[in-house]
Amino acid sequence: MKYLTCLLPLFFLNLLFAADPLPSWNEGDTKASLLAFISASQVEGGEGYIAPGDRIATFDNDGNLWSEQPMYFQLIFILERVAVLAPEHPEWKEQQPFKAVLEKDKETLKTFGEKELLELMAATHAGMTEDEFSDIVSEWIKTAKHPTTGKLYTEMTYQPMKELLQALRDAGFKTYIVSGGGVSFMRPWVEAVYGIPPEQVVGSRIKVEYEDGGTLRRTGEIDLIDDKAGKPVGIYQVIGKRPVLASGNSDGDFQMLEYATTGEGPRLGLILHHTDGEREFAYDRESHVGKLDRGLDEAGDRGWLIIDMKKDWGSVFGE
Amino acid sequence: MKYLTCLLPLFFLNLLFAADPLPSWNEGDTKASLLAFISASQVEGGEGYIAPGDRIATFDNDGNLWSEQPMYFQLIFILERVAVLAPEHPEWKEQQPFKAVLEKDKETLKTFGEKELLELMAATHAGMTEDEFSDIVSEWIKTAKHPTTGKLYTEMTYQPMKELLQALRDAGFKTYIVSGGGVSFMRPWVEAVYGIPPEQVVGSRIKVEYEDGGTLRRTGEIDLIDDKAGKPVGIYQVIGKRPVLASGNSDGDFQMLEYATTGEGPRLGLILHHTDGEREFAYDRESHVGKLDRGLDEAGDRGWLIIDMKKDWGSVFGE
Repeated sequence: MKYLTCLLPLFFLNLLFAADPLPSWNEGDTKASLLAFISASQVEGGEGYIAPGDRIATFDNDGNLWSEQPMYFQLIFILERVAVLAPEHPEWKEQQPFKAVLEKDKETLKTFGEKELLELMAATHAGMTEDEFSDIVSEWIKTAKHPTTGKLYTEMTYQPMKELLQALRDAGFKTYIVSGGGVSFMRPWVEAVYGIPPEQVVGSRIKVEYEDGGTLRRTGEIDLIDDKAGKPVGIYQVIGKRPVLASGNSDGDFQMLEYATTGEGPRLGLILHHTDGEREFAYDRESHVGKLDRGLDEAGDRGWLIIDMKKDWGSVFGE
Repeated sequence: MKYLTCLLPLFFLNLLFAADPLPSWNEGDTKASLLAFISASQVEGGEGYIAPGDRIATFDNDGNLWSEQPMYFQLIFILERVAVLAPEHPEWKEQQPFKAVLEKDKETLKTFGEKELLELMAATHAGMTEDEFSDIVSEWIKTAKHPTTGKLYTEMTYQPMKELLQALRDAGFKTYIVSGGGVSFMRPWVEAVYGIPPEQVVGSRIKVEYEDGGTLRRTGEIDLIDDKAGKPVGIYQVIGKRPVLASGNSDGDFQMLEYATTGEGPRLGLILHHTDGEREFAYDRESHVGKLDRGLDEAGDRGWLIIDMKKDWGSVFGE
């Protein structure tokens, strides 16, 4: 009987997946574990069964669905917006933090911390209406190119993860983004790229204010930092359910993975380990972007699955 | 051609609705307008067409999907929780605002404002984990009875509105609750009662904090008052799209209706007018709960549809 129960998921896997749903993943333990989790979730009465309403899967974005080197792409957006807006602000030529951005003064930029980032955010992300900001992001994402690869940023999204998102949706999961990035920076383009609609995006937020007549105005004040312990909080605010699957790549995702994998029933925590310096970027414990340290130490004991980019992915960007 | 275009929605209406989707609504202009809006939304190329991704409909809860007299049901929950918790707090016998609640001292209760309400909220809604609070609400909603009708509160939900929610979902709309009530007070039971899952509920929130180990703890601090101008803000945070249909019953819904109906393309604003003192409660401009004044004045000019409960509803609670 035990033996039959073990075989059942494989049987349903074949029914569910007429063709290989993860063609960009190399054959091996990682791919097998992902398919086994998904297929078992469908088998009513089985140990791996997940009720349809509980099929909530949350994915970090930066470094998990698209690249994040040499810096978060939203930070590149900010720096480029400062250059675009500079003619309207002649005073920026002599005023930090704008001066360093305009002069591409790397030494000074390196000294910037939260204070300077918030000033740059307020200058580029606030004051306009939500609709206007959405248009600015939509235009930028269509045309801006990555500084070293020369690709559009949407071309630096991970094909294997997009296949995983689709396989989960085919199995009745609701897929969400839960990212430290700005929710208004992601909503305009993620549906076309990942198949995730704007209403399934959780991210950092600045406060918006309603203005009579039907307008939402973006203020410069921070409302939620959707990172670290802020991720389960963002999940509470927007989803209101403990996810059964959480996927991330840095210690900023640790609490989300812990929150998702400490509930009852079948759970899956995924950590994407950036091991491929040739096809993408290799970094972990020492990186200033996407630092992964505690996650690597504790993944084994916690039963989280580590995705080894170099070993597990046949293709990174869908080449 | 114009004539044919007018007939098209009726044709598709018949295809879409094999049986009457709104059997608890009396025949008349209101029901016809609702069905025309829904059926036109399906007709690609027609003036009333709504792209699937834009089919977002938001519904107030108190006084719109269930009753709200003689006071908000969540306030009754609070008062009953004070009584349940009193044995653990002997000091409440001599301490306001608890003393008046325990003694059912109506004169003193009437003097209470926001300060007292927040104290009662903190004592009954905070301190515990989110999972614990969810269990408390689930138990209460299964057993508590309305003070004058003797019904379960879930039996005081409006059958015509539940039919409208279902008809919208059948036409590909995502239905959301957007309520001044607490999101954590609604999430545990709304799916069973309205068919709206917890992740499609926007409501007022207190702050939650993540605790290591996988727990969300409820603090006493207010995070969002999802009422009046707070409703479009809540919609921004959770949905990130301007709804094409918004439904409410009080001036607390005014900004949500304005926000929904000032976008481009087909839009529908609904105001439920409580005109039926026999089957439910009759109130509007002078009511201390669910006051409807500006909405009645401006509905005509804004093209919002007023639902007249007495005239338009064949059944209120599905008797």
